[in-house]
Amino acid sequence: MTTGVPEGDSVSLGKLKQMMADFAKERDWDQYHTPRNLLLAMVGEVGELSEIFQWKGEVKRGVPDWKEEEKIHLGEELSDVLLYLVRLSDICGVDLGKAALRKVELNAIKYPAKASKEVTNKENEIENSSTANNGTIEEN
Amino acid sequence: MTTGVPEGDSVSLGKLKQMMADFAKERDWDQYHTPRNLLLAMVGEVGELSEIFQWKGEVKRGVPDWKEEEKIHLGEELSDVLLYLVRLSDICGVDLGKAALRKVELNAIKYPAKASKEVTNKENEIENSSTANNGTIEEN
Amino acid sequence: MTTGVPEGDSVSLGKLKQMMADFAKERDWDQYHTPRNLLLAMVGEVGELSEIFQWKGEVKRGVPDWKEEEKIHLGEELSDVLLYLVRLSDICGVDLGKAALRKVELNAIKYPAKASKEVTNKENEIENSSTANNGTIEEN
Amino acid sequence: MTTGVPEGDSVSLGKLKQMMADFAKERDWDQYHTPRNLLLAMVGEVGELSEIFQWKGEVKRGVPDWKEEEKIHLGEELSDVLLYLVRLSDICGVDLGKAALRKVELNAIKYPAKASKEVTNKENEIENSSTANNGTIEEN
Repeated sequence: MTTGVPEGDSVSLGKLKQMMADFAKERDWDQYHTPRNLLLAMVGEVGELSEIFQWKGEVKRGVPDWKEEEKIHLGEELSDVLLYLVRLSDICGVDLGKAALRKVELNAIKYPAKASKEVTNKENEIENSSTANNGTIEEN
Repeated sequence: MTTGVPEGDSVSLGKLKQMMADFAKERDWDQYHTPRNLLLAMVGEVGELSEIFQWKGEVKRGVPDWKEEEKIHLGEELSDVLLYLVRLSDICGVDLGKAALRKVELNAIKYPAKASKEVTNKENEIENSSTANNGTIEEN
Repeated sequence: MTTGVPEGDSVSLGKLKQMMADFAKERDWDQYHTPRNLLLAMVGEVGELSEIFQWKGEVKRGVPDWKEEEKIHLGEELSDVLLYLVRLSDICGVDLGKAALRKVELNAIKYPAKASKEVTNKENEIENSSTANNGTIEEN
Repeated sequence: MTTGVPEGDSVSLGKLKQMMADFAKERDWDQYHTPRNLLLAMVGEVGELSEIFQWKGEVKRGVPDWKEEEKIHLGEELSDVLLYLVRLSDICGVDLGKAALRKVELNAIKYPAKASKEVTNKENEIENSSTANNGTIEEN
């Protein structure tokens, strides 16, 4: 690409949802795709994703010292979680894209930009960050 | 909407990625967003999602008998998993959309539509489906 | 055994802790057994445990219709979660047995036997159990 | 205690199993304690445990710089995972203690002490440990 925009950025949740629905239909797998089956399948994939990180100690941003095959494996496990998550949402009748946009808005109200910044800095001044409640997307 | 297409379907992974990056930057949270911190945060959200389903026994597609507030809560937890997943991918330098499309292709090769259908039917004929290895997105 | 007591019932948490400590020491693995490494390894095992249950729909108590090899596999995955949990507790300096006994006591205070029973029955009378907050060990 | 042995070390899996069974019975909760309900409840607790560790970066053995209340919270979440794990095993008819002892034996065969030590050392000589497959309890 010449634009510098990652090519996968344009992939929409609707497209993934449709691909997963077609995939299941073509294989007669709708019968297995119940909410709790899909949830447990997703938990299984989260486990596989965690296994990639389990013995590594702290990992640097961009995973610069990982082998190419490990990076590919990482992309596969991240994808598996995403695909089951999209499918689970669809099967539950949840508009995931709409819900996600709404959640970001709620988080922006819960953690106002300026206030959160100040809290973060303050925390860092008086103690190590281990107990700071920052970085969080939500607390529900 | 008049088209019948869920409005969230057009939300792209790139848009969510950008929103999450802006959100963290505005709050000085980049310092907390390391790969393993984000992974554990995502596992935390998967736990909250599981809690919604934990005492319900088998759940019907579309969750028709759930209260409206439960459905909203469900959308929030699904969103939290998605948002951390998108952020984790970004911080690891993974093009999640591209990886997901590739994974669907790999799955289509691994589970050819016709063969999988036959296996599924055959399984159902000769035994209960509890041991059938169907419905799976991947086995890695 | 002639007593009818399952032979594994007498296995103590201290014994498992010691076995795990010896196992790691004999293999020079202490260096890998940091709290977050062990936690992620445990999440990985929880994922493998979930995979056993993922396509089965509701599963009966005692898993009466599972094949013998599936039951053995189930025991292995339950064990893997337990062993990492015991090791994680040890490495964090937590007396797991003491903490567990204390937690049961706290739960008994939080959910008094008689009151919980009445709530359960009442819930069942007036609505389906899907929203009942029972069965829970804790709510923290 | 004068012996120096942690008091919780003597707690057996059988005792915890019996306590959980009594606890459920006294509250009429057996009806909710199906295998998949308990599994999802355990996943929920694993999520809560992960939340304790999520923003901390690498954590030191013995969590020396954690506040007392954080250590207590940690013990509670570790306990919650244990209690649901013990209950899940019981409801599935698995002798968890026996299975765990057997698993340690299998691991000892799979990772012989001497060989694993050599591999570990060798790995450390020639590359960083990030790709070493050590520290693992199992690979199933």
